[in-house]
Amino acid sequence: MLIGVLGGGQLGQMLALAGMPLGLRFRFLDPTPNPPAAAVGEVVTGAFEDEAVLAKFAAGVDVVTYEFENVPGASVRWLAQRVPVYPPPQALETGQDRLKEKTAFRELGFAVHDFENVEPGDDGLGAVARLGLPLVAKTRRMGYDGKGQMVLRTAADAARLRATLGDGALLIERLVTFKRELSIIACRGRDGACVTYPLTENVHEGGILRVSRAPAAEVDAATERSARQHAEALLQRLNYVGVLAVELFDTGTELYANEMAPRVHNSGHWTIDGCEVSQFENHCRAVAGLPLGEPGVRGSSVMVNFIGAMPPVAELLKIPGVRVHDYGKEPRAGRKVGHATLVGAGAVLTQTLIAAAANGQIASC
Amino acid sequence: MLIGVLGGGQLGQMLALAGMPLGLRFRFLDPTPNPPAAAVGEVVTGAFEDEAVLAKFAAGVDVVTYEFENVPGASVRWLAQRVPVYPPPQALETGQDRLKEKTAFRELGFAVHDFENVEPGDDGLGAVARLGLPLVAKTRRMGYDGKGQMVLRTAADAARLRATLGDGALLIERLVTFKRELSIIACRGRDGACVTYPLTENVHEGGILRVSRAPAAEVDAATERSARQHAEALLQRLNYVGVLAVELFDTGTELYANEMAPRVHNSGHWTIDGCEVSQFENHCRAVAGLPLGEPGVRGSSVMVNFIGAMPPVAELLKIPGVRVHDYGKEPRAGRKVGHATLVGAGAVLTQTLIAAAANGQIASC
Repeated sequence: MLIGVLGGGQLGQMLALAGMPLGLRFRFLDPTPNPPAAAVGEVVTGAFEDEAVLAKFAAGVDVVTYEFENVPGASVRWLAQRVPVYPPPQALETGQDRLKEKTAFRELGFAVHDFENVEPGDDGLGAVARLGLPLVAKTRRMGYDGKGQMVLRTAADAARLRATLGDGALLIERLVTFKRELSIIACRGRDGACVTYPLTENVHEGGILRVSRAPAAEVDAATERSARQHAEALLQRLNYVGVLAVELFDTGTELYANEMAPRVHNSGHWTIDGCEVSQFENHCRAVAGLPLGEPGVRGSSVMVNFIGAMPPVAELLKIPGVRVHDYGKEPRAGRKVGHATLVGAGAVLTQTLIAAAANGQIASC
Repeated sequence: MLIGVLGGGQLGQMLALAGMPLGLRFRFLDPTPNPPAAAVGEVVTGAFEDEAVLAKFAAGVDVVTYEFENVPGASVRWLAQRVPVYPPPQALETGQDRLKEKTAFRELGFAVHDFENVEPGDDGLGAVARLGLPLVAKTRRMGYDGKGQMVLRTAADAARLRATLGDGALLIERLVTFKRELSIIACRGRDGACVTYPLTENVHEGGILRVSRAPAAEVDAATERSARQHAEALLQRLNYVGVLAVELFDTGTELYANEMAPRVHNSGHWTIDGCEVSQFENHCRAVAGLPLGEPGVRGSSVMVNFIGAMPPVAELLKIPGVRVHDYGKEPRAGRKVGHATLVGAGAVLTQTLIAAAANGQIASC
């Protein structure tokens, strides 16, 4: 079976590495030549908006999925008329629009912060007045890694709203202090069966994920159960097929749903080494119509992102038990170029790994 | 780093799947177009003996290794003059010649059955008389999966020796009854550090491996230690770099060394799912000059080969905990087309998996 993947980044690479042992083969569509996934499948190079490119990409593929959600909805619908697309286009469109996303969260009983929609042409000051500072404003579309958002603490911030975020539709929501960021990853098969991975704790810096720990510490059973049930309800509501991630804010008393990603997610990279069946394998199984696998969590995992440049792999591998994932990308500031995971390791090794990521080099271990 | 691999079969495919997360990339040389490894790297198609093909294959690769040992020694030496080759050519040549192999075993203190060399032009009857029936005769070169050997139980068998095995050099050895077949997989890095995997029990049918169980049951600590020490001594003696497998016969009182394979080995496929660091990853690390990883055995594993045709993957994946490896090969009688591993599973699931392999279909589970 040939799987077509929109996007050819590291998520595509990891999907193929997980799917190939099941006999699946992969083709990627990416605007840049020689993306990371080129190592693991054929790449069609071209714009997502170009119908000739889409036709070349779609010819002969059995199913289409994506590893990058900011694909134009029109392109996905064009493909969906010709070949099965999972997750379905309406799920992608819900994830691409912060208003649809937050509305779905609220309707399904997730806790959400008060929010208002701000249409193009509206300066947003009415919504700011009604919700009350402090607030966070986000473009409704095309935001990722902290881009396309700003915090409004003062009237002066509010006055700069359009100058900072542009003329498009916005979502403004109450800025609520939270204790930590969590996420949950869930997967639904074509047959409607669901599996969920444990709540994961995530540390961001500058809007970019740095460290994930899973299962998240200090989560009571009721909270864990509730998060899993809400995630499954979202999958069912969207008639979803594949992996979905929901980012949550833990205030200490409640988990607020922040946003969803309709794809495999960086906060689930620990599942490659920390579970028997990773998010990548389950996503492949789902879109290929194969039975899902129970995660089979192996212990406590910590995943550390390498941002900008890889530490030397030969040095990294001296850390006992470390599992290294080098995406083969050129170094560039702010770019995710790899990650490493420790399963069941103690605090000292974890600190060594985090220090390696921070410095681009390895402290003694 | 670009690794050149001689051979492009499933072993090459699994090497690349294990090595790519470390940032390694792969090129394969194979006489047939579109071999299994084509999914995971560039393939140069051509004969191992063709210098123009070898030159194309070697251009730009950082190191050469192999996943198939019946490569002409002259080709490997040609490559070794131009690029580092691991394991070294002399180790390959030892593995290719049953006389050199058995002699090395004996000199290192492995138990071996009495054997004699039979040169071309010799009818072998002298060796037969000196050793005494029953015996097993093998071509000294190019045997695999039970091909190129015959059992001599009677004088009539001995008279058919040349008619059956041809005119080449032979090794004749005493046929000794054994209780079971074991193997040990060991790996040596460029820095001389070694790791060994636990003794594995293997069941062959018709000369083809069907089932491996690891760690092998009923092995006392002294036997395990001795096997590991002998394997490491062999690695050191051959100045080896990479994975080496040694097949052993367990008579109940002694482990007799039967043969070695100077490459990743089918009896180590269980390490992909049953260990933290598989034989494939450690072989990649070794030839790339990276530190080796401790195996990190996860529990008891059973690995079942699929011979001839894959059972339906969708049915296989219904077996709880099963890990499926479909090599993407066309079905053909006697061909290894995939395998599956269960880690920590009970007898019922194991029997289900073995039945699936035997029938090409899945019994209820």
